[in-house]
Amino acid sequence: MTKYSFKNDYSEGAHPVILQRLIETNLQQTVGYGDDIFCNEARALIKEYIQRDSAIHFVSGGTQANLIVISSILRPYESVIAADSGHIAVHETGAIEATGHKVNTIPTSNGKITPQQVQEVLNLHTDEHMVKPKMVYISNSTEVGSVYTKSELTDLYQFCQENKLYLFVDGARLGSALTSSKCDLTLEDMAHLTDVFYIGGTKNGALIGEAIIINDQELNENFRFHIKQRGGMLAKGRLIGIQFAELFKNDLFFEMGKHANAMAKKLADEITSKGFSFLTEPSSNQIFPIFPNHLIEQLQENFDFFIWQKVDENSSAIRLVTSWATPEEQVDQFLNQI
Amino acid sequence: MTKYSFKNDYSEGAHPVILQRLIETNLQQTVGYGDDIFCNEARALIKEYIQRDSAIHFVSGGTQANLIVISSILRPYESVIAADSGHIAVHETGAIEATGHKVNTIPTSNGKITPQQVQEVLNLHTDEHMVKPKMVYISNSTEVGSVYTKSELTDLYQFCQENKLYLFVDGARLGSALTSSKCDLTLEDMAHLTDVFYIGGTKNGALIGEAIIINDQELNENFRFHIKQRGGMLAKGRLIGIQFAELFKNDLFFEMGKHANAMAKKLADEITSKGFSFLTEPSSNQIFPIFPNHLIEQLQENFDFFIWQKVDENSSAIRLVTSWATPEEQVDQFLNQI
Amino acid sequence: MTKYSFKNDYSEGAHPVILQRLIETNLQQTVGYGDDIFCNEARALIKEYIQRDSAIHFVSGGTQANLIVISSILRPYESVIAADSGHIAVHETGAIEATGHKVNTIPTSNGKITPQQVQEVLNLHTDEHMVKPKMVYISNSTEVGSVYTKSELTDLYQFCQENKLYLFVDGARLGSALTSSKCDLTLEDMAHLTDVFYIGGTKNGALIGEAIIINDQELNENFRFHIKQRGGMLAKGRLIGIQFAELFKNDLFFEMGKHANAMAKKLADEITSKGFSFLTEPSSNQIFPIFPNHLIEQLQENFDFFIWQKVDENSSAIRLVTSWATPEEQVDQFLNQI
Amino acid sequence: MTKYSFKNDYSEGAHPVILQRLIETNLQQTVGYGDDIFCNEARALIKEYIQRDSAIHFVSGGTQANLIVISSILRPYESVIAADSGHIAVHETGAIEATGHKVNTIPTSNGKITPQQVQEVLNLHTDEHMVKPKMVYISNSTEVGSVYTKSELTDLYQFCQENKLYLFVDGARLGSALTSSKCDLTLEDMAHLTDVFYIGGTKNGALIGEAIIINDQELNENFRFHIKQRGGMLAKGRLIGIQFAELFKNDLFFEMGKHANAMAKKLADEITSKGFSFLTEPSSNQIFPIFPNHLIEQLQENFDFFIWQKVDENSSAIRLVTSWATPEEQVDQFLNQI
Repeated sequence: MTKYSFKNDYSEGAHPVILQRLIETNLQQTVGYGDDIFCNEARALIKEYIQRDSAIHFVSGGTQANLIVISSILRPYESVIAADSGHIAVHETGAIEATGHKVNTIPTSNGKITPQQVQEVLNLHTDEHMVKPKMVYISNSTEVGSVYTKSELTDLYQFCQENKLYLFVDGARLGSALTSSKCDLTLEDMAHLTDVFYIGGTKNGALIGEAIIINDQELNENFRFHIKQRGGMLAKGRLIGIQFAELFKNDLFFEMGKHANAMAKKLADEITSKGFSFLTEPSSNQIFPIFPNHLIEQLQENFDFFIWQKVDENSSAIRLVTSWATPEEQVDQFLNQI
Repeated sequence: MTKYSFKNDYSEGAHPVILQRLIETNLQQTVGYGDDIFCNEARALIKEYIQRDSAIHFVSGGTQANLIVISSILRPYESVIAADSGHIAVHETGAIEATGHKVNTIPTSNGKITPQQVQEVLNLHTDEHMVKPKMVYISNSTEVGSVYTKSELTDLYQFCQENKLYLFVDGARLGSALTSSKCDLTLEDMAHLTDVFYIGGTKNGALIGEAIIINDQELNENFRFHIKQRGGMLAKGRLIGIQFAELFKNDLFFEMGKHANAMAKKLADEITSKGFSFLTEPSSNQIFPIFPNHLIEQLQENFDFFIWQKVDENSSAIRLVTSWATPEEQVDQFLNQI
Repeated sequence: MTKYSFKNDYSEGAHPVILQRLIETNLQQTVGYGDDIFCNEARALIKEYIQRDSAIHFVSGGTQANLIVISSILRPYESVIAADSGHIAVHETGAIEATGHKVNTIPTSNGKITPQQVQEVLNLHTDEHMVKPKMVYISNSTEVGSVYTKSELTDLYQFCQENKLYLFVDGARLGSALTSSKCDLTLEDMAHLTDVFYIGGTKNGALIGEAIIINDQELNENFRFHIKQRGGMLAKGRLIGIQFAELFKNDLFFEMGKHANAMAKKLADEITSKGFSFLTEPSSNQIFPIFPNHLIEQLQENFDFFIWQKVDENSSAIRLVTSWATPEEQVDQFLNQI
Repeated sequence: MTKYSFKNDYSEGAHPVILQRLIETNLQQTVGYGDDIFCNEARALIKEYIQRDSAIHFVSGGTQANLIVISSILRPYESVIAADSGHIAVHETGAIEATGHKVNTIPTSNGKITPQQVQEVLNLHTDEHMVKPKMVYISNSTEVGSVYTKSELTDLYQFCQENKLYLFVDGARLGSALTSSKCDLTLEDMAHLTDVFYIGGTKNGALIGEAIIINDQELNENFRFHIKQRGGMLAKGRLIGIQFAELFKNDLFFEMGKHANAMAKKLADEITSKGFSFLTEPSSNQIFPIFPNHLIEQLQENFDFFIWQKVDENSSAIRLVTSWATPEEQVDQFLNQI
C-alpha cells in the first residue's frame, strides 16, 4: 500500500484548471521562446498584482532562475551574500560557483538574515584581494519555513539601496509566504522592495515554471541572452505562460497557498496542543515538529516525510510539507496517530 | 485572421494522449527529481527500443541537453568539433563556451561532417598551446534538414573510436530523421553508434523534454550532479517521464515523425513537380524550396514561414517545417497557391 | 655544438640595463602588488609617450593579458571578433572560452581584418539565440608578421566606435610593429585609436611582463579585482615595474624593436635578391621565406627555426624571427648558406 | 625618511646569487615555455630533495598555482575544503569560484584543519543536490603563521587517502615552515604525504615563481594544457628555472628560511620576555604580538607593519613578517622601542 507523503509540495501534478487550459489551447499555434500570447497574458495578469511595469521572464525551475539571475547581474569578481541555509548555498550543487561567483554565507538558525549581518560581511571585504559582495539573496519563505515581514524586508531593501547592493528574493515558496498569517507582505510589496524576485509555480500548483520579475529595468538589459545561454529558454514557452495565466486568474495562486498553509496550521496547532514543540516556529507550509524517535518510526509506517535532524538521543525534528493538493483527511489521519 | 504557420515544429502543444495521461496521473504522488515511476517506465520503454542498458536522463530542452552533456564530459582544455551550422556553434548564445569550452567548426554546405574533415581539425591541434579536440557533435537530422545514413554514422563512430573522440548526437529532431526515407538508422543503431545522444521530445509532440541516452557507462558517472548544477533537474521530473512513456508506447514517437515527414514530402514533391528547386535535398521535416520573391510575398499573405537566405536578386530560399500536428489541408492550401 | 636559433624573440634573457637596474634596486623595500615606486615610475614614463592619462597595469604574459582584458570587459553573452590566425583564436588553449566567451573568427591570409569583415560578422548575429559580438581583437604586429597602418587602424577604430564595439590590440610584438618601415603608427596613436592595448615586454627585451593600457576609463573600473582573480597580480610587482621603467628610458624599447627589424630586413632583402619569395610580405621581425626543401634541410644543420607550412611538393615556408639580441654575424652566416 | 617594513616577505628583490646567475646566463639561447635546460636543472635539483619522480611545473605566483592545480583536478561539481582563513577562501578574489568550484570552509582559530573537521564537512554532503568535496587544501605555514607537524600531516593525508580526497598543500611560505623548530617535516616528506604541493619562491628569496610538485602521476596528465589555458605558461620560462636552480643549490632555499625564522624568533622571544602575549603561538616567519595601542602608534613612527585585529579596547594584534633579507639591526632597533 502506498503511504501518503508529506515530503514536499511537488509530489502531485498541477491544479486541474491548468491541465484543462492546456487541453483547450493545445492546437492553437503560437510563436516560440516565451513571446507568445499566453506568456503575454500571464505577464499582464501578474502586472496587475504587482502594480509595476517590471520585466517578466519564465523559466523551468528554481535553480535555473537563481543561476540565471545571479550570473546576469554580477561582474566576475562580485559575490552574493546568503544565509548559510540558503538554497544557493547548500542545495544547488554549486550552481552559482559554476557561473564563477562566490556565495558569502551568514550563519543563521531561523533562515533569515538582517542588515546588521550583511554589514558584517561587507566589513570583511575591503580591497581587490577579496571578492566584492554586490547582491543579497534571501528566500521567502525560507528553507526552514520562516517568513519575512514587511518591516524586515523594508529594512533589508533600504540597507541594500544605501550600500549599492542588489536584493534578490527566491520565491520558490512565495505562494505560501504571502498567504501566511505571519507575513504581511503582498505581491505588490515584493515588486517594490526588491530589485529582482521570482514567483514559484512548481511548488504551488504548476507542473513546472517560475516567473522572474525584474523591477530594476537596468538589470533587464539583454536578459533573454542570459536565459538562452544557460539553457533556460523553452521552445514551447507557452507551457509556462498558460500555467501562470491560470495561476493569476481568480486568485488561484493565493488560494492554493492558503490551502497549503491551512493544512500546515492544522497540523501545527494540533501537534502543539498535544505538547510537542518545533524546531522553528510554524509559519508557512513547511513545519518541523520534534517527536520522540519511537513515534517517528510509528508514523513512518503510514506516512512519508523527511527526518530533518537529530535533536537529542531520543528525539528528532521531522519536516512536514503541505501543498495545494493536501487532502484534509490525510492531515486528520496523521494527527490521529500522534 | 491568423495565418497558418510552417515556421517550426513547436507551434502547438502536445499530442492529445500525452495530455490525457497527465490528467489521469495528476494526483498520484511521486518522488521528485526524475526518480519517479513514470520516468522509470519511460526508461524501460526506451530501453526496449535501443536494446542496450544505457543510462537515461530527462531534461527540459535541447540547449540544456547539449551544454550539460558536453561540459560533463570534457576536461577544461578539451574542445568539441561541430559543423559550422551546428546548433551549438550558432544558435545557443555561446552556451558551450559559457561552460568553458571551445567549439571547433567545420565548414559544410549540407550540415553534415565526415571523418576526413574531423581529421583535418585534429591535424591542426598538436600541442598544449592549442585546445585538444575530444568530442564530435553532430545533429540528426541536421539544422538544414539533411540526415545521416547508417553507413555515414558507422564511419564517423569508428573514426571517433580510433581517435579517442567521443561522438555525441543532438537528436532534437531525431524523430523525423529516423522515419525519413533517406535514413536507414534505427533507435537501436543510435545507441550502438554513439557515446551519447538525445531524443528530442519538444519538436516531436511533447510539451517539453529531451531524453539523454548515455551509452558509454563511464560518462554516466555522477551525471546527476551535472544536471543539478546546470539547473536542469526538475522537481516534478514526472512531467517529462509521463510524456516519454507515452511517446514510446505504440510507436507514437515514430508515428508522429512519419506524419511530419509525409507532409514535408507532399510539399516537396509537388513543389518539385512545379519546377522549383531546393537549397538542400528534402530529406526530413524541414525543407528549403527556392521561390521567386514575388511568390514568397504572395505566400506570406496566408502563411507564416522563415525566409532562410537570399539566393539571387529575384529569388530566395524559404524554410517550411512540418510536424505531427500539421493538417494535410493546410499543406494542400499552401500548394494551391504556388 | 649549439645551433643559433631564429625560432623566436624570447630565446635570451633581458637587455643588460634591465638586469643592472634589478641589481641596483634589489634591497630597496617596496609595497607589493604593483603599487610600488618602480611601477609608478614606469607608468609616468609610458604616459609621456602616449600623451593620455590612461590606466596602466602590469601582468606577466600575453595570454594572461588577453584573458584578463577580454573577460573583464565582456558580459557573459558577448563575444570577441578576431582573425582566424589571431593568438586568442588558435594559440591560447581556449583561454578566452575558459572565461566563458566565444571567439568569432574571420578568415584572413595576411593576419589582418577590415571593417567590412567585421560588419559581416555583425550581420550574422541578430538576436538572443546567438552571442552578441562586442569587441574586436587584433594583433599588431600580427601572428604572420604583418602590420596595421595608421589609416587602417583609424578606419577600424572608427567602425568600432560607430558600432559600439570595443577595440583591443594585442601588442605582444608592438615594439617591432611601431618601428617597422611599413607602419606609420606611434605609441601615442595606439592610445588614441584603441580602447585597450598592451605593450609587450617579453618579446622585446624584458625578462617578463606586458603593460596593459586602458584608454577608456570606464573599462578600468575595478580592473585590479580582475587581475587578482585570474592570478595575474604579482606580489613583487616591482619586477615588471623596474623593467618597463628601463624600457621607456632613452627610447630603449624602440631601439630594440629597430634592431630586430633591421636584422629581419637584412635577411629579407638578401633572400629576395637571391630570388626567393615570401609567404607574406616581410614587414616586421617575423619573416616567412619560401625555400626548397633540400635547402631547408641544409640550413637546419646550423640553425634552428620553425617550418611554418608546406607550399608545394618541393618547397616550404619557414619562419625566421629576429630580436633585440640577434647578432648581425649570425644573420650573415645564415645568408652565406643560402 | 623611509621606515623599515615588517609588512611582508616580498618587500625586496631576490637573493644576490639569483641575480648573478641571471646575468651569467643572459645571452644563452633556450627554448621557451619551461622546457629549457635551466628549468630541467631546477627539476633535477628538487628531485634530489624530494626523492620522488614527481612532475614539476613552474608558474609565476601563488594564486595562479592554486587556481591551476585545483581547477585541473576537480570535476565541475566537485569542491575543495579549506580553513576559513585559507588563502583560497579569503584572499584570492574568488579565483577558485571563477574556475567554477565551491570552497567549503572550516572555522579555525589557528589556521589548521583536522581529519575530524573534514569528516564533518563530508557528512553534510550526501547527494547530487550538493557539491561533492574532493580535495583538501591546507597551507604550510598557514596564513596565521602556524605549521603542521609530520604527525598532523600524516593523519590528514591518510584520512584523505581513505576518503578518496586529494590533499593539496599551498607552500607559499613552505621555506619558513620546513625550517621552523615547531615543524619536523622535510621536503621529502611533503612529496610523500601530499598529492600535490607547491614550493613558494616569491616569499623566500626569488623575484617570482612557485614550483608545483605533482606526486600523483595521474594528476599530471595534460597539466601543461591547464597552465597554458590559465595564462600561467611563461615564454621565458627560464626566468623561474634559473631561480629555482639557485634556490636548491647549497641549501639556499633552507638557509633563507632559517634566517627569516631566526629573525622572527628573536623578535618573539624578546617580546615575550617583555611580558607581551601573542594571538597565535610564534612558529614561523609571521608572528602576531598583542600590544597596547599607544605602543603600536609609537612603533608606527619608525616601522611599517599591518595591524591585524583589534583584541580589546586598549590593545591590538599586529603582524610582523621577517624574510631572508631582514637585517638583524632592524630587529634590534624594533625591540629597542618596546
